This record gives sequence, structure tokens and C-alpha cells, in this order.
Amino acid sequence: MRSCVLQGKAKAAGLWNLFMPKESDRGVKYGTGLSSLEYALMCEEMSKCPLSSEVFNCQALDTGNMEVLVMYGSTEEQKCQWLTPLLNGEIKSCFGMTEPKVVSSDATNIASSIRRDGDHYVVNGHKWWILQDIIQSAATHKQHSMILVPMDALGVKIIRPLSVFGYLDYPAGHAEVLFENVHVPLGNMLLGEGRGFEIVQGRLGPGRIHHCMRLIGNAERALEMMLERTQNRVAFGKKLAAQGTIQQDVAKSRIEIEQTRLLVLKAAHMMDNYGNKVAAPEIAMIKVVAPNMAQNVIDRAIQVVHCKLVPFRPTEERDLVTISSLPECLLGRLLRLADGPDEVHLRSISRLEYRKHNLAKL
Amino acid sequence: MRSCVLQGKAKAAGLWNLFMPKESDRGVKYGTGLSSLEYALMCEEMSKCPLSSEVFNCQALDTGNMEVLVMYGSTEEQKCQWLTPLLNGEIKSCFGMTEPKVVSSDATNIASSIRRDGDHYVVNGHKWWILQDIIQSAATHKQHSMILVPMDALGVKIIRPLSVFGYLDYPAGHAEVLFENVHVPLGNMLLGEGRGFEIVQGRLGPGRIHHCMRLIGNAERALEMMLERTQNRVAFGKKLAAQGTIQQDVAKSRIEIEQTRLLVLKAAHMMDNYGNKVAAPEIAMIKVVAPNMAQNVIDRAIQVVHCKLVPFRPTEERDLVTISSLPECLLGRLLRLADGPDEVHLRSISRLEYRKHNLAKL
Amino acid sequence: MRSCVLQGKAKAAGLWNLFMPKESDRGVKYGTGLSSLEYALMCEEMSKCPLSSEVFNCQALDTGNMEVLVMYGSTEEQKCQWLTPLLNGEIKSCFGMTEPKVVSSDATNIASSIRRDGDHYVVNGHKWWILQDIIQSAATHKQHSMILVPMDALGVKIIRPLSVFGYLDYPAGHAEVLFENVHVPLGNMLLGEGRGFEIVQGRLGPGRIHHCMRLIGNAERALEMMLERTQNRVAFGKKLAAQGTIQQDVAKSRIEIEQTRLLVLKAAHMMDNYGNKVAAPEIAMIKVVAPNMAQNVIDRAIQVVHCKLVPFRPTEERDLVTISSLPECLLGRLLRLADGPDEVHLRSISRLEYRKHNLAKL
Amino acid sequence: MRSCVLQGKAKAAGLWNLFMPKESDRGVKYGTGLSSLEYALMCEEMSKCPLSSEVFNCQALDTGNMEVLVMYGSTEEQKCQWLTPLLNGEIKSCFGMTEPKVVSSDATNIASSIRRDGDHYVVNGHKWWILQDIIQSAATHKQHSMILVPMDALGVKIIRPLSVFGYLDYPAGHAEVLFENVHVPLGNMLLGEGRGFEIVQGRLGPGRIHHCMRLIGNAERALEMMLERTQNRVAFGKKLAAQGTIQQDVAKSRIEIEQTRLLVLKAAHMMDNYGNKVAAPEIAMIKVVAPNMAQNVIDRAIQVVHCKLVPFRPTEERDLVTISSLPECLLGRLLRLADGPDEVHLRSISRLEYRKHNLAKL
Repeated sequence: MRSCVLQGKAKAAGLWNLFMPKESDRGVKYGTGLSSLEYALMCEEMSKCPLSSEVFNCQALDTGNMEVLVMYGSTEEQKCQWLTPLLNGEIKSCFGMTEPKVVSSDATNIASSIRRDGDHYVVNGHKWWILQDIIQSAATHKQHSMILVPMDALGVKIIRPLSVFGYLDYPAGHAEVLFENVHVPLGNMLLGEGRGFEIVQGRLGPGRIHHCMRLIGNAERALEMMLERTQNRVAFGKKLAAQGTIQQDVAKSRIEIEQTRLLVLKAAHMMDNYGNKVAAPEIAMIKVVAPNMAQNVIDRAIQVVHCKLVPFRPTEERDLVTISSLPECLLGRLLRLADGPDEVHLRSISRLEYRKHNLAKL
Repeated sequence: MRSCVLQGKAKAAGLWNLFMPKESDRGVKYGTGLSSLEYALMCEEMSKCPLSSEVFNCQALDTGNMEVLVMYGSTEEQKCQWLTPLLNGEIKSCFGMTEPKVVSSDATNIASSIRRDGDHYVVNGHKWWILQDIIQSAATHKQHSMILVPMDALGVKIIRPLSVFGYLDYPAGHAEVLFENVHVPLGNMLLGEGRGFEIVQGRLGPGRIHHCMRLIGNAERALEMMLERTQNRVAFGKKLAAQGTIQQDVAKSRIEIEQTRLLVLKAAHMMDNYGNKVAAPEIAMIKVVAPNMAQNVIDRAIQVVHCKLVPFRPTEERDLVTISSLPECLLGRLLRLADGPDEVHLRSISRLEYRKHNLAKL
Repeated sequence: MRSCVLQGKAKAAGLWNLFMPKESDRGVKYGTGLSSLEYALMCEEMSKCPLSSEVFNCQALDTGNMEVLVMYGSTEEQKCQWLTPLLNGEIKSCFGMTEPKVVSSDATNIASSIRRDGDHYVVNGHKWWILQDIIQSAATHKQHSMILVPMDALGVKIIRPLSVFGYLDYPAGHAEVLFENVHVPLGNMLLGEGRGFEIVQGRLGPGRIHHCMRLIGNAERALEMMLERTQNRVAFGKKLAAQGTIQQDVAKSRIEIEQTRLLVLKAAHMMDNYGNKVAAPEIAMIKVVAPNMAQNVIDRAIQVVHCKLVPFRPTEERDLVTISSLPECLLGRLLRLADGPDEVHLRSISRLEYRKHNLAKL
Repeated sequence: MRSCVLQGKAKAAGLWNLFMPKESDRGVKYGTGLSSLEYALMCEEMSKCPLSSEVFNCQALDTGNMEVLVMYGSTEEQKCQWLTPLLNGEIKSCFGMTEPKVVSSDATNIASSIRRDGDHYVVNGHKWWILQDIIQSAATHKQHSMILVPMDALGVKIIRPLSVFGYLDYPAGHAEVLFENVHVPLGNMLLGEGRGFEIVQGRLGPGRIHHCMRLIGNAERALEMMLERTQNRVAFGKKLAAQGTIQQDVAKSRIEIEQTRLLVLKAAHMMDNYGNKVAAPEIAMIKVVAPNMAQNVIDRAIQVVHCKLVPFRPTEERDLVTISSLPECLLGRLLRLADGPDEVHLRSISRLEYRKHNLAKL
């Protein structure tokens, strides 16, 4: 609701699709043309208010999907039908990859199928952790293929919304979805049959940066609350701020935030100047570093400012919105798991390291 | 509801007030006469079903309060009015110590007041994190005094239930309570004016053990789920159970659980044989060790079995009860803060260590 | 030198071979008949003086080798030639397993060979980290066979003593040794051809306990020095002992020592009552826990009492003995690697855990 | 010896005093005029060969002392007598601050005295951890004064060289020194009486950067050895490089090195562009981060490549030089203590953080 008015203002001020390149296409201007590095700094700023990513049409999932459509959209029809309304903030999109029955971190495990049948593809599969809100389009992935599926297509069954730590994780949200003999036109295939892996590889742009900078913003706020509260409270005859253990918590938090921000900004700089492929090690590193850092910093902060970090309010205030938003103090934990668990990214970093080492010896 | 039937069965089977000594008083049998060590093992068992502590009348807060009344109840009247119905599971009790405006870990900060006025005491104060359900009695603490306050006394105002990580932490629950010129009879004073600190010192019995063994039980279940799930899932061509990083997570978890259980059992053994005062270092140690262990073990388990550990269910199922119970995966985090933060207990352990060291040199 | 006199006194007082069973054999009394649990406590005590394990004939390597000879010595000749003088402290023994060219943690990698040739075995191989002093006997291991090799046999070539962190690790010491066509009598085979693995399995007795309790003793002493020094020194207007960060270091060290000792004592209790096989998980656990604990506790202590923990002395005092003894502060680090690295033991613990879990489900 | 020849080559090539500004003074050219950022990269490079810092006249202690003389040298005489030969690599210098009897991390504790007596100052005090080699000059600090003391002055008594972990820490080395009524001319006072603190504040230049980049270089080499060794060794049927736990060790090491280097380079950039005072938080941060990172990375590496990281050699090779150099694997540990322990720097970072926070609110 409220975000609609703000979206109008943002659009009018040219603060719209901040993550997108400047060029326009078929009369639709893409975005502001910020570099990844510049956009990263915007993301930290936006993290200070949960609403803001929607206000500037920079909300997770839609950002990645718009990029996919720009980079890999095969036809004008795909762009007209899906990209334009996304750029205008008129529809919402989601992305289906994880499946309940297998370890989806290993893409070769994926069991959903896309079968050609005359002038249609027939999609079957069972997905969850599909991010959803007012769902209108979807991309399904099967053995290196990705396809656009309208969420109102016959055979798409939203089984249930999923909760995280008991929260709906609004505004993004997650759902379990069944695809039973869903027929979609041939034109909905992205890039080409069997080329889904290429898309996944390329789809690493602002999303990763956005998440990491949002975590840095969260950690900064947690540290700020810690500084605030410890100055005004006394235990054992001394302000908390003057006690060695609190001082170590503050100092370690500052160090970890600082080191994480530098790495994220380096990753953005690498993406800008050398592309996603060269930046792959840095992108994998920040995916591990930022959520762990946020979890640690916020854990220390909870120890002294619990009431502000841990949701803590009268039940009567507990309406659907407040109950649904994932509290900041749990975001780091979620992101150590979502979008590939730490373990998978550490594995990638290691493999890249061995490759680099062997190249260096040649 | 359901627990009423089970309570009847438990009482009939003599499985009632498991933590209390055997002796009876005024026709009321106290409990089973288990040692702390024996009771500790019961606690781990009870942790396997959230309902069970209530079924056996061993639920937190009432246990500690019954002990206080047995040990420090000054008069027959106090015992008749409060202890007997608690022993019978007919009323519920709470305990008020923490105050919103000060660092309550340092008891000298407490600002509530008890003033004598003729044949009454007048209690004033602002407390929170008072555990509550159907609240009927309360003990307020001020400058080393503790007093029994009926929750329906004039001037007791329950401001709001408090939530933890967004949960009401049912069945215990927490509340913010205002005491405004609450008049209670002189006979409600526990032990004697200015002797509240003695009571707090003595009130360390089964509560601490209960919490710690419950955390061990939670950690055991988390590890079990981890073993279960990793045997049936494959990533990168290999069962998770055969992968080194998972194996290290399993092994480290087993080690930490084992070490924590041994320490809790030693603390119980010390309490049984040498009393709470001698056992003070061990009691402080388990208060730090068990919640941290549970947080670590469960954190590792979430990484592979998230769906079972992290609340994860359709919204329609989300009734007041399910939303209110604190998920096990957050209990460890809560208990690193509740009942004194880690920092306070580490401080105590250190002070006891220096004292022991200096005694050893005499 | 000096230890000879003390050895005489110890023997006279019946404090000799503390780790050995009481029964005597061929007129030679084995030992004191202490249980593993009792012996564990002796080990912590002995750790307070580096000389003491030799004084009581409880020095590493000889202890394990005496046990092997008692349990698996095939013939009276073996016992006469090797066990008796070891029991009397007249010879020293070593044990060869690790090989420079392979990962010896995985026993299947071992490359040395024992070939039968008439009435002799011919031993070939390259070993290192053989503990050595005045070497007189040796056990070589090949594909599940173990054999006694006199160190003065033709073809045994001590290439060099090895140093650890620059120290010779006196009195045990380590060496690199080549076995080139070493002929040993058939009677030197232990237990039987191809049964070496059984011996390794059984050879886990006091050695593991000894090491772990020695580490606990070291950690206790480090903590003691920390307590001592922090009481007498002031920084920023306050005694170190009164500063929160030092207090946390003290408290965490006490907790870790306590938890480790309980686990080691449980392992000893399990060995005493159920045998090495049932105690295998606990034995593996303490092998990981104790060195890591010692490394952590001593690391904290170095931070405040460096001069005493870190070798720190005028060069003129630097004779062969002092330079050769491994400083206590490095023992933990060494033992995380020696006798199987952490990784191997964590792997074993995990495998035992899965086995137990699956048995529980049957 | 050998370094003399190399020093000549380096000087001829203009690779001399790399850390010093370009300007020349009294006919003596200072240095190469590299920025701190540029010099930082040189330091990582130099760390690959222990000799190199001497070859380029960039060895610790002399670097800091030359800077002090450039910035705070009061007179031409001071510069002629001390700076010029240091710039030429003709003499060596040391710096005396730590005292055995007090916690020297808190500068207010320092007990040495400088008393004026006619046309001389009389210096008394007991110092240790004075870095030494062929000692020729010394700066003593007392209540905010610093003075130049020739090491051959009457009353300067070198009590003994000190060892670290048993090593002399060649080529720098450490000594315990007594100053008994040492008379030095008035002209030896640096900057002015009571201004020693200013000098300490300013004396943070390349030394900190040098140490941190050297540690990064060490860590890189440790990681490289780890990559090398794990590719060629097999355990449990699989190359170590393909095992998850090794991969995590590699990935975490890469991440920590990367994050540390970025922070050190940022600190250098801040020093270059905003001066030491503004860069104070970053300078304190790297002092904590780099040694801890090196200790962790090298600890992981020891676990697989011990023989190369841990000194490990035949005794016959053990001459004074090899025994004296501190092995790389212990440098990180030493530097967590030397030049202010972690605790002091964490305290500074915290204080700066609170100050920044309060300024932000104005």
C-alpha cells in the first residue's frame, strides 16, 4: 500500500531500478546505470529501512529475474510480456530451483522435467522455497533448461506458504509449488534448451551484492544499538561501555564489519571491471563471509540490547505484517543456508584456489 | 487441557514433583526424593516432549518457587496458602526480578521498593520478564527482601505479555508488570526483611539442572535428525554421511554434548553431596556451557535438516499454541541471556577461581 | 643421570610401572595394578614434573610397548628378551609406523614390507617419527604384521634425529630410520603374520590417557601462572585480575579444563569396565579434545604470562637438555598431529556415531 | 655476510630505504618515496625471503627509528650522528620501552627515569624485549620523554639476549638491558622533554604495515604449501585435495588472507591520504587481525604440511643461525603479544568507535 505512493515518488526522481544498466530498449529505460560498486553502497543505505528495496524496485528475486530477461531473454515477446512490467514494478516474479526430495545444492540432483509436446513444453515437478508474493511468472529449471511459467497456468498448484523460524519472511515470502503437466508455449524457453546452467552462472549480479550489503547494514545497526545502550547502563559500578568484555565485542564487531564491507566492495569492483566469471571467487567468498559476520555481530549485540534486536512486543500489535517479516537478527542465519549453504560455496572457493595454483605453476 | 488427564495419571503413578524431597509436611507429601543426579537424568528424558514437565509438575518457575517456600517459607500460613496448591499443581507462580530500566544482572541496581505501612507492606516497582501463565502469586525482590504478592492484589497491573524472537514462549511465558502501591500482609514476607539475597543464593537447585538437561536433550534430538537426514541424501555423488565436513559436524556435536552432560551431572553430584554453595562453580559453569553447546550443535544441524528444526509449516496451522511455543532452535540463544547473561556467570567463575587459588596458597 | 637415583627410590617404594596390571609372570612383578581411572589421576600428578614419567618407568612409548608384549607377546623368549628389561627400566623401545612418503593416518597406505626368507623375516622400509633414545628394540608394522627388530641389527640405519618446532622433544625424541634387508628371527613376529591391526587396536591403553592427563596438567599449570601473575599487575588503573577480559579467559580456561578432565576420566572408567573396544568413542574423543583444550588454555595464558610459558632464557643456559625438551606450550599443538591428526579421530567418532544410531533403530 | 653484497646491489639499483620519503637532506637522499600503499605491496613481496628486509635496509626497528629521527630529530647533530649512518645501513638501532616489572602496555606504568644533571641527562631503568643485534644506539622512554643513548655509554649493561619460543629471533633479536646512571648529553633528547608520547603516536608508520604484510606473505606461503602437498597425497581412497575438510581449510584460509590484505591496504591508503591520526582505527585493527589470521592459516597448514612449516631438521645442521631465526609458524603468535597485546588494541578500537558514534550524534 504505502509503498505505492513512495514508488511513484521514486520513479519520478529517477531512483528506479537502481541496479539496471542505463540503456533503454523498445522505449523502456532500464535503470540508472550505476556500477556494481556504486549500487553496493546504495544497498547498504537501503537496508536501513525494510521497505526501501521495493520503493526503488530493487527487491530480491525481481532484480535477478529482470537481469536474466535482459541477458538471456530470447525474444521480443518474452521481454514485452515479462520484462517490461517487471521494470515498471507492475508484476512480481519468482524463481523455482530447490526441490524437497533432493539436495538441490548439487544441481545435477534436480528431478523436475520439461518435455516437448507439439507446440508446447510440458513441465512437471515439485519445488519449494520458491519466493512468492503476488506471483505471476516463474522460471523452472530442468537439466540445464529454464522456462517461463505463468503462475496462473493450468497445473500450477501453490501448496502452501512456507515459514522461516516461524515467519513468512515478508515481503519476499516462500512457497511450496507443484507443477502438474503444466503446458507452456515453446516461446517461453529462456536462451535455449539445455542452456539453463549458463543462465544460473550469469545470474549472480546484484542479488549477491544486495544481500551482503543488506547484512552489513543490519550489522551496522546492531553495533549502533550496542554503542547506544552500553553508554547508558551501569553494572558492577561501571558503565558497560567501560568494561573490557563489551569493548572487545564492540571492537571485534567493527573489525568484522569493516573486513566484510571491503570484500563485498572488491567483489563489486571485480564484477564491474572483469565480469562475473573472473569475480567468481570473490562472489563465493562474500556469500560465506557476510551472513556469518552478521550472525556473529548481531549475536553479540543481542547479548546487551536484546529488546530491540529480538522481536519483543505486545501480542495485540502482532498483525500479519509484523509477524511475517523475518527479524533482522535471523536473516544472517537464513542466508547461511539459502542460495546455497556455506559448505557449497567453500567448496567452490577451494576448487578455484587449486585451479589458480596449478595455473600459476604452468 | 490434555495435560490435565496426563497429570492425573502421573500423580497416580507417583511420578509427581520429581524434583522435591520425599518428606511430607502437614499431610502433604512433597515429592519423589530423587537426588539431583537422578533428577537430572529425568530432565533429559522429559525434554523429549515439551508437555512433559507440566505433566509431572516439574515446570520451570514453579519448581524453584516450591523450593523457596520449602526452604524459606516463614510460616505455616505461607505454606498452606502457596506451597500446598503448588505441590498439587492447582496454581501457577511466577518470579519478578528483572527491571526494564536497569542492568538487573547486578542485583544492587534493583529499584523496586517495599515499605512497611502499619500491618502491611507496600510494594512499588516495574518488572518485566516475569514468567507468567495463569498468574496467581508473585515474589518481588527489593534490597535483599522477597515477598509474596497475589497477582490479583489491587495495584498489580499486567501491562503486556512479552514475546521472545516473536514467540510467547508458551507454556511459561513472560510479562511486563507494574506494582503500584500494592498492599500485602506482613505475613507475606519470605524469611525476613533484608534476607532476599540468601534466598536467591539457595534458589539454584533443580532449575539450573532442568534447563541444562533440557538443552542437552534438544541437542541430542538435533544430532539425531542430522544423522537421520544425512544418511538418505546425496550431493556431489556421495552420501552426506560420507562427507568429511558433515562427519566433523557430527563428531564435534557428539563431543560437545558428551562434555556438557558430564559437567551437568558433576554439578548435580556436587549439589547432592556438598550443597549448593560448594557446587557454585559447577553450577555457574553449566549455566554458560549448556546454552552455548545447544546453540552450536543446533546451528550445525540446521545447516542440514533445517526443515525440521526451524519452524516450517503452513499458515493455516498457525494457531496460538504453535506460534507461542519457542522453537527449540532458539532456546539455547534465549538461555544465554535469561537467568543472567554468560558474562555474569563467567565473572563468577573467575572470582571463585581466584579465591580457590589464594586459599590453596595459604 | 639424576633420574637413576630417583628410579631406585621409586622402585623401592613400589611406585614402579604404575600403569601395569598387578600379576607377575616368571618371577617378574608387572606393576601396581592401578585401574585406568586411578592411573589417569597419577598421570596428571606426574605431569607436574617433566622427569617424573621416567622416574616411575611410565614414559611414553615404553608403556605402550610393554602392554603390547604382555598382551600379544607370542613366546616366552619374546617376553624374556624384551619385556623383562623394559619392566626393569633397563632398555628403551620405540615404535615405527609413520612413513615419509604416504599419508600414514590411513594404515592401508603403509609401504614397508616383511618377507619370509627361510628361518628369518626380511624387513624393508623407510619410517620416521620413530620415537627414539637409546634405541634397542623396534616394532615394525607391515600390512597387518608387527615384528620386533633390534635396533643394532644389520641394515637398520638411523638417518637423523628429527626436531619438532626446532626441539628434539627430549626425553622421547624422534628419528628417521631406514630398514634395508634387515634379517630378524621368525620368533620375533608378534601375535602372528597379518595380525598387526589387532595389536594396534589393542594398543590404546594408558598411552592415550597419559598424554591427555599430561596436557590437563600442563593446562592447569598455565592457568595457575595466569592467576598468579594477573593478581600482581596493574594496567589502566586496575589489577588485571579485576578486568573483564582476563576474567573471561580464566573462566573459559577453567571450564575447558574441567570438561576435558571429566571426559578423560570417563574414558578411563569405560576402559576399566567395558574394555578398549566399547570405550573407542571416548578414547577417540579425548585424543581430539585434550590437545585442543591445552592449546587454547595455554594460548590465553601466554598472552599474560608469556615469559614463563614461552622458553625465555639466556643463551648461556642453553645446553643440549634445555634446548631439546619441547616446551609445554607447544605440546598441545604437536599432539593435535601426532598419533593421528584430529581429522582422523573426528572421522572415527562420526562413524561410530552413525553405527550407534543405526543400531538404535533396529 | 651475504647480505652485504646484496645490499650493495640493492643500493646501486635504487632499491634502498623503500619506506622513506624521497626528499634528501644534507646531501643524503632519504628513500624511494613510495606511498604506504605501494610500500605495503613491497613488504608482502619481501616477506618471501627472510633476508630481504635487510637487503633493502627495511628491517624492523631501524625503519621506525629512522622515521622518528626524520620527524622528531631535534638537531642537525642528531641527524648526522644517528640518521645518516642508519640510512646508509652502517649502524643498527633498537628501541627500549617494555619493562620487566610492570604492564608496559599501559605507558603510564613505566618506571625508568631521566633526570637532568648539569649538561647531561642521567638515565636509569630496567628494560627488556629491546630488539638488538650489534646494538649501537637506544631510545629510552620515561614519562613522555625519549632520548638517544649510545649502547657503548657507561652504565649500559646488556644482561642477556632473550629467546622467544626458544629462538633468538634473528636477525632482530631481543635483549634485557640495565641502564645505571647512564650520562648522555642534553642534545640527545628527542623533540623535547615530556614529548615522548607524541613521538610514540607518530611512530606508527611503515612498521605496522611491514609486520602485517609479512604475516600475509607467510600465510600465503603456508596456503601454497598446503595446496601443493594435498594434491599429491591420498588418504582413505581419495586425494586430500578432494576431501571436504581440506577444502574448507583452503577456502577459509583464502578468505581470511584476502580480508586481511584488503584491510591492511586500506590502512595504508588512509595513512597516505589522511595521516596516522585519522588512520588510527585501521592501524589498530590490522595489528589485531593480521597476527591472528596468520596464526589460524598456518595452524591449518601445519595440520597437513607439518614438515615444512615446523622446523624439522637433522641436529648437525643446527648452527647458531638456523636455531636463532624464529620459525614463520610462530611469528603470528609472537606478534599477538609484541608491540602491544591484542587486548590493548581492541580496547583502542572500541574507544575510537564510541567516540565516532558520539560525534555522529552531535
